[in-house]
Amino acid sequence: MPIARAVRIQGSGGVEVLSLEDVEIRSPGLHEVLVEVAAAGLNRADILQRKGVYPAPPGEMADVPGLEYAGKVAALGPGVTRIAVGDRVMGIVGGGGMATHVVAHESELVPVPRGLGLVEAAAIPEVFFTAYDALCMQAGLALGERVLLHAVGSGVGTAALQLACAAGAQVLGTSRTQSKLDKCKELGLEAGVLIEDGRFDEAVLEHTGGTGVDIIVDTIGAAYFEDNLRCLAPRGRLILLGLLGGASASAPLGLLLTKRLTVAGSVLRSRTHEEKSLLAQAVTENVLPLFTRGKLRPVVGEIISMENIAVAHQRMEDDENFGKIVLRW
Amino acid sequence: MPIARAVRIQGSGGVEVLSLEDVEIRSPGLHEVLVEVAAAGLNRADILQRKGVYPAPPGEMADVPGLEYAGKVAALGPGVTRIAVGDRVMGIVGGGGMATHVVAHESELVPVPRGLGLVEAAAIPEVFFTAYDALCMQAGLALGERVLLHAVGSGVGTAALQLACAAGAQVLGTSRTQSKLDKCKELGLEAGVLIEDGRFDEAVLEHTGGTGVDIIVDTIGAAYFEDNLRCLAPRGRLILLGLLGGASASAPLGLLLTKRLTVAGSVLRSRTHEEKSLLAQAVTENVLPLFTRGKLRPVVGEIISMENIAVAHQRMEDDENFGKIVLRW
Repeated sequence: MPIARAVRIQGSGGVEVLSLEDVEIRSPGLHEVLVEVAAAGLNRADILQRKGVYPAPPGEMADVPGLEYAGKVAALGPGVTRIAVGDRVMGIVGGGGMATHVVAHESELVPVPRGLGLVEAAAIPEVFFTAYDALCMQAGLALGERVLLHAVGSGVGTAALQLACAAGAQVLGTSRTQSKLDKCKELGLEAGVLIEDGRFDEAVLEHTGGTGVDIIVDTIGAAYFEDNLRCLAPRGRLILLGLLGGASASAPLGLLLTKRLTVAGSVLRSRTHEEKSLLAQAVTENVLPLFTRGKLRPVVGEIISMENIAVAHQRMEDDENFGKIVLRW
Repeated sequence: MPIARAVRIQGSGGVEVLSLEDVEIRSPGLHEVLVEVAAAGLNRADILQRKGVYPAPPGEMADVPGLEYAGKVAALGPGVTRIAVGDRVMGIVGGGGMATHVVAHESELVPVPRGLGLVEAAAIPEVFFTAYDALCMQAGLALGERVLLHAVGSGVGTAALQLACAAGAQVLGTSRTQSKLDKCKELGLEAGVLIEDGRFDEAVLEHTGGTGVDIIVDTIGAAYFEDNLRCLAPRGRLILLGLLGGASASAPLGLLLTKRLTVAGSVLRSRTHEEKSLLAQAVTENVLPLFTRGKLRPVVGEIISMENIAVAHQRMEDDENFGKIVLRW
């Protein structure tokens, strides 16, 4: 069994339950590779897992968080054909990403685009996989459509913003921090809505001449649900990716019917290997070239040493970061 | 202006606001035809329109109800190429179907399958268009999937039941009347759930070995919303077609996320001409041949003379009819 240095969650609670320890990880099996991790992006899910409310799915390491990583391939399991030792790779995992070594199936890996360092690459997988899946695979984003992104200064927000702009959409975004909206203007944001009293529907309708938006990507959930339905245009699609603002919403179903809306919930973490492989392949073909062509870039707000994992968690909870927080070994 | 005999709604309220009167209808315009109507199916929307809570969309006759009809083409407007005088046709309209004559665009008409009389054909358009659109176009019904149909003995229910069975699905259905469930067995229903206390989730989960169903087609809305989300399988789709059980639901968004569910609202009535034409074409190609091949049949519970329109409304409100109520001239 290989030994890795890893972030461990012992019990559940505040940042004091986090520590760095040696853990045993399995050897790469058929079609799997061992990746020596350079850095791992931090996600809200890691915070929720630390608090004990979002356990790892069955089959994943239960006490090592981390949903994404970038690094170099260190060893190959049997049957690996697409990957060689030394390849620069990145990917999403259901857990265990915050370790010096990660075992992954070769078909779930994507290459790090040339020109990008491994540390900044670690800011890519989770948010660009998520945003691409939400906008393009699920919402069917089409040229010229209007997209509303909540928490547009977040990791997923800044990834979705760049993707939507690259796809020819007109993007509106919300944030509770004006400086984040200002920074998003440089990434292509057309209209920023500062949320001060929890509402945004009037501002969004005003910005769209009363029509509303075609697609909303939302990680807030209940607190925004009714306003979301109100500011969707006919045939609009709401993709729910998180519930930071609560899970129990009141749903005005009349709006769903009369405007023929679609609401879809989505998570990556619990997907099957086959689904993750298909998504990795689609991202490799359709998204990664846009990094090389300069249309997309990882938005890294802060790079923190893995031994300061507690500081990183605190930073994310303070909600002051723009884009991603990356932990490096 | 042609004169037609028609059901008129004067004011709003009980069945006393319904009467038969002569009305002027427009002459067929470019690519339009005048249909001499033999019969028209009754729909819940007609009841709601009579009560004043579901007005006709802009551009439709405001005071003549009726969303579907079958009859013979009596005259052609300029430019009509696909239809000839005397053709047996049927179709959906945004209003005005309960008249002896209806003007319709040629591309929104579908032919009456041979072997079917015009009166029984009038029971087809609204429910088979709706069920085909919901199951096949929106929910993407696939072979072997499990489908739950609420009010399975209704017009839409019996149409969706037959379509889902024809597509190789396993169909569960609910009703508040045991005799309707029994009749649905002859149409292919695998498991009937009698709703006595408003709940059905436990019975559905039990019938599916705890897994739940892949697709739900629902016209009840709020009263069934939470149970619906509970008994959907991962990646399940809920298609909302009506709100007979209320419009204000509480939505457990956590289920949407963890099971990656989709909820879509749908109505036919307000769709554009282009959308209705595409649907009519898809139904003509994919659904009508199944009538000729004996896989589908209109389910007509009662045929009532148009002069007894008030009786027909009362019958539908009493909820004792199986399948469709058809009004004939």
